[in-house]
Amino acid sequence: MAKPSWKAETVPCEFKLVRQVEFPDTDKSGFVHFSAFLRYMEAAEHAFFRSLGYSIWTRGIEPPVGWPRVRAGCDLKHPLRFEDRVEIHLLVREKKDKSIAYEFIFRKLNEQPVKEVGRGTLVVVCVTRAQGKMKSAPIPAMIAERIEVAPPELLEPCP
Amino acid sequence: MAKPSWKAETVPCEFKLVRQVEFPDTDKSGFVHFSAFLRYMEAAEHAFFRSLGYSIWTRGIEPPVGWPRVRAGCDLKHPLRFEDRVEIHLLVREKKDKSIAYEFIFRKLNEQPVKEVGRGTLVVVCVTRAQGKMKSAPIPAMIAERIEVAPPELLEPCP
Amino acid sequence: MAKPSWKAETVPCEFKLVRQVEFPDTDKSGFVHFSAFLRYMEAAEHAFFRSLGYSIWTRGIEPPVGWPRVRAGCDLKHPLRFEDRVEIHLLVREKKDKSIAYEFIFRKLNEQPVKEVGRGTLVVVCVTRAQGKMKSAPIPAMIAERIEVAPPELLEPCP
Amino acid sequence: MAKPSWKAETVPCEFKLVRQVEFPDTDKSGFVHFSAFLRYMEAAEHAFFRSLGYSIWTRGIEPPVGWPRVRAGCDLKHPLRFEDRVEIHLLVREKKDKSIAYEFIFRKLNEQPVKEVGRGTLVVVCVTRAQGKMKSAPIPAMIAERIEVAPPELLEPCP
Repeated sequence: MAKPSWKAETVPCEFKLVRQVEFPDTDKSGFVHFSAFLRYMEAAEHAFFRSLGYSIWTRGIEPPVGWPRVRAGCDLKHPLRFEDRVEIHLLVREKKDKSIAYEFIFRKLNEQPVKEVGRGTLVVVCVTRAQGKMKSAPIPAMIAERIEVAPPELLEPCP
Repeated sequence: MAKPSWKAETVPCEFKLVRQVEFPDTDKSGFVHFSAFLRYMEAAEHAFFRSLGYSIWTRGIEPPVGWPRVRAGCDLKHPLRFEDRVEIHLLVREKKDKSIAYEFIFRKLNEQPVKEVGRGTLVVVCVTRAQGKMKSAPIPAMIAERIEVAPPELLEPCP
Repeated sequence: MAKPSWKAETVPCEFKLVRQVEFPDTDKSGFVHFSAFLRYMEAAEHAFFRSLGYSIWTRGIEPPVGWPRVRAGCDLKHPLRFEDRVEIHLLVREKKDKSIAYEFIFRKLNEQPVKEVGRGTLVVVCVTRAQGKMKSAPIPAMIAERIEVAPPELLEPCP
Repeated sequence: MAKPSWKAETVPCEFKLVRQVEFPDTDKSGFVHFSAFLRYMEAAEHAFFRSLGYSIWTRGIEPPVGWPRVRAGCDLKHPLRFEDRVEIHLLVREKKDKSIAYEFIFRKLNEQPVKEVGRGTLVVVCVTRAQGKMKSAPIPAMIAERIEVAPPELLEPCP
């Protein structure tokens, strides 16, 4: 049976967040500090979850799950400056039973043509806590079924 | 009767922390971002508590207490730069039943003569948590008796 | 002569910025770290400048001016949590020849009725740089004439 | 000819920095925010440079060089908490004409036996600035000759 066309909308594999570089994101070099890119990635991930109807700090799911980050990284090609408008493009690269891998493309919007300034990676693991101990756990179905892996062509490195 | 000389050591009214300005503390201006001064003050407060034998995140006190900040501020006269060595001089200005007020003097050590670059204020309240609610509470005696208010001459503004 | 009604719009004395609490703004207590309130104040100040047609990091003004912070502080009555929506209400308290004093009211919007959670203060000085030295300077007319002091009733402490 | 024994000391291939987790490094989860690991890595890199007699923000080198980060990442196995003592072990993995690649091992010292909690990677490029443009440049000899690549056995992943 053909996949209904509305499916693509309700089961997203990507998300875009736009934010403007704030002053404390910059450092003495005049550019955005590299650790800020990890915060940008996480902000997009959290907004992605909200777009699905959930908070990353789950409410309404029993048992509650958390999403510690086990891998994070970024490749930076061009610097960002104060008040630059940056698009953080989240793509779901992999969805396993207990973890999700995201890729991110950073684009500077206030320049024509729009310029890719870097890429990022984030791998998070779904966990529950019992007796103060974290334990990896299957992603709750109600979340897992709302997330789709992005098609390979979206994930390909830019030329 | 003369105050025993060991008193000054065991019941302190002040504490000094020295740290070096790190790169992410700076911003595009080349100077330390003003919000970093609040982090510096807090770092000195936490080191002060450790010097008393406690963690600000109390362990071994029942019921556990927390110290939310209800007032914080700073006056800045001279900027700090990357790798400057700054002394954060904590002084206890007031000790009430349920709160402590601190004053801070920031000094740049890598300049001769040593230069006062700013002052800060921090007021914290002792609280306990019950059913997820915070409630102000008397400072546990074992902590209160280890802290003394600084003599007025130490607290006077510099000329 | 009556003040023309459009005046209030073009020469503003206040500005409101709404933002959502992000994960790294929180700390182990589960609440927003107090230093984040200073960053929130500054974000509102910078957005206020952009609303006037300027960047706080002035472009197009000769000589370029900067705005170092000489005083900053906040009083906090209620904590903020992850994903809370906070309104940062900037009010111009004082406009001098070479400095501006702002007041801020923090309101938590995702609670009914809307709750004031704290207040803040920020004093900035207009400076130029020559030979690497900062020197206080008159606020450029094109900026000064676009900013008005808020009427006292807006600045009064809430009951 | 045998390598003189003092060589290992004067031309280092590794560096260790110990720091204590500060309160704003933590987030609502109670653990250190993952972006802090990038700041820790950079702090170790900057301390490494100081141990060589240089600042990462070079003084006394003509033309001045900068070290933008082009790649950064970390793998995290165990969380860190407030006041944990963490050793950041920097190892030089690669030294090219215009770039340096570092590896980092994070170890939690306040636990017996000492536990590896994560690993990190950082690649920096040496640049000069001319007319506001950054351009990759050979690492100045006086710096390059003071840095050695770590032997493979130090860089091997732990079992």
